[in-house]
Amino acid sequence: MGDAPLPSEHVLIVFYQHMPEPLQEEFRRKFAGAEVTIYQSQPGVPVPPELFHSATILVTFTDLPDLKDATNLKLIHTFSAGLDHLMQHPILRESNIPITTSSGIHGPPIAEWTVMNWLVSSRKYVQTYEAQKGHRWDSKTQYMRGMHDQVGKKVGILGYGSIGRQIARVSTALGMTVHAHTASPRPTEESRRDTHYIVPGTGDPAGSIPVSWHHGTDRESIRSFLALGLDHLVVSLPLTPETTHLLGTEEFAILSDNSHHHSAKPYVTNISRGKVIDQKALIDALKSGVLSGAALDVTDPEPLPEDDPLWDAPNVQISPHISSLGSEYLPRSLDIVVLNLGRLKRGEALVNAYNRRRGY
Amino acid sequence: MGDAPLPSEHVLIVFYQHMPEPLQEEFRRKFAGAEVTIYQSQPGVPVPPELFHSATILVTFTDLPDLKDATNLKLIHTFSAGLDHLMQHPILRESNIPITTSSGIHGPPIAEWTVMNWLVSSRKYVQTYEAQKGHRWDSKTQYMRGMHDQVGKKVGILGYGSIGRQIARVSTALGMTVHAHTASPRPTEESRRDTHYIVPGTGDPAGSIPVSWHHGTDRESIRSFLALGLDHLVVSLPLTPETTHLLGTEEFAILSDNSHHHSAKPYVTNISRGKVIDQKALIDALKSGVLSGAALDVTDPEPLPEDDPLWDAPNVQISPHISSLGSEYLPRSLDIVVLNLGRLKRGEALVNAYNRRRGY
Repeated sequence: MGDAPLPSEHVLIVFYQHMPEPLQEEFRRKFAGAEVTIYQSQPGVPVPPELFHSATILVTFTDLPDLKDATNLKLIHTFSAGLDHLMQHPILRESNIPITTSSGIHGPPIAEWTVMNWLVSSRKYVQTYEAQKGHRWDSKTQYMRGMHDQVGKKVGILGYGSIGRQIARVSTALGMTVHAHTASPRPTEESRRDTHYIVPGTGDPAGSIPVSWHHGTDRESIRSFLALGLDHLVVSLPLTPETTHLLGTEEFAILSDNSHHHSAKPYVTNISRGKVIDQKALIDALKSGVLSGAALDVTDPEPLPEDDPLWDAPNVQISPHISSLGSEYLPRSLDIVVLNLGRLKRGEALVNAYNRRRGY
Repeated sequence: MGDAPLPSEHVLIVFYQHMPEPLQEEFRRKFAGAEVTIYQSQPGVPVPPELFHSATILVTFTDLPDLKDATNLKLIHTFSAGLDHLMQHPILRESNIPITTSSGIHGPPIAEWTVMNWLVSSRKYVQTYEAQKGHRWDSKTQYMRGMHDQVGKKVGILGYGSIGRQIARVSTALGMTVHAHTASPRPTEESRRDTHYIVPGTGDPAGSIPVSWHHGTDRESIRSFLALGLDHLVVSLPLTPETTHLLGTEEFAILSDNSHHHSAKPYVTNISRGKVIDQKALIDALKSGVLSGAALDVTDPEPLPEDDPLWDAPNVQISPHISSLGSEYLPRSLDIVVLNLGRLKRGEALVNAYNRRRGY
């Protein structure tokens, strides 16, 4: 990408952190032939309007221009996956400038975070790490018990978007089977396709990986999904009034009672929002052995208070909402812009375009 | 497997550790219809000969019968991947009883161990773990720098057996490209096939995953492989006089000088034998930043002495030769026996058969 000359474009990239020079160079290479301005915004200080005036392409997290300063903009791209934080802006409500999101780029890092946590738990990594710190070569018998692998295990993925799909892809490579659950039914091949941006070489573009696909938004559909005999449950749902505390004592019991794998009770991974899980119920399920462990990149609340009992719940692995981070984040987001510039030129539909009528 | 009745067989399983009852039950289920004897051997105490007399199938690590006690044996299976430790035994030298190995069952656990270590390193797991111990919700900026993912990375696998193949399978799912190196040339489809036992749903049976395949046993062939621009090097070679200290200062420099990935210098994973690497040179390469890190399940010597400088080398992750372990080890090895019983009955060639003429 970035091969085609874009002589007439002026790409304005606004970001709230300093971008190191190698990253800036990488950005310029992506838009070879175009004028590229990289601007570091300051909290509370508006971006100078004259910067917006000459831009034809704007890339930003939150800094949108006034309508009157957006006259040359052909395309606005946001570094975030959604536009919730910009919904009330006149650019969204009153202009027709195409707006695209970074939806789809979170699959690889979050899938890596997920699988890493599974393996850290099932392969006793912490024991290895602590032994190394103490210069101790532990005996094999200290590892024999409790260590197990993922071959033949069943993973259920609640919410089968770009993240769930990349988790599915790695899971099958590990020898697991994948069961998908989505809010809406996906009875046809067409309906199972991933329509968002897909990082090349990743994900499940056709939606062909799951061995079974379930749907529904009511509690009953979730409960029958949890009764499939899953070894892993991955929560990758948006937070809505319906999904708040969707998973609690009863749900963990169903998950556990239906799992018959000899090596471990079910393991829960949450990469969506802390409030989807009743956290008190999760702690109880971990303490009682109903669940064998949990990997949580999100908690309720965030930051998790220092005295919260979740920190020390058995076999829980917590990280501070960082699973999507990495040096690839911004360059990958710009790949979507490069792709869409070609599409704009050819008059094709844009990838990850915000639909003002639908509201997403 | 285990569905077909085997009324006439007597399977003798000899192991040096106590097998818990659920495991014994699992074994009996696998050989439904056959008589199954599970015997715990004691160090230095020979297995009673009468046990061998009635056995038609023997499964063991090291306990082979005298020739005169092996009259009813149709098949001997060892829990180990090779037979080096039994080469001088009369059963190997003077009998024609078919002997099979557990070659092939190590792919899934060792591939999981490998990928876990990559991700622990690239996703700053230890930082997360230590923060959790201290009940600290670190800020995102503490993770932004240095975290990266595996998409688009190149992995070179020295030794493309069952382990290398499963690493390859997971690597491609992560979005990486795979380059294979084997001692002998593999110019044809037939020559690239995996001829050993393959854990169902894993590995690279056809050898179709690598985007390039290299070969040779001389230092030059290794060095040109290391010059491919690899982000990861996985060492999965047998230890021989030729492979002893195969990788040293010069090799790490070639690996490093040819790697141009912006996010990290090459990372080395050793899952074969410690002596394949010049360990002093490895420590130097880690200290100087020629390599970004290393995952080592094997060291030189083992156990690694408490005062060895390797323990504290930068970004090294050491485990005490446990990467193949797990609760699946023994049941998976017995799956090979079940498979071969069917083949014996149908007069087909055995999987993982030791060839007395070739010596492997």
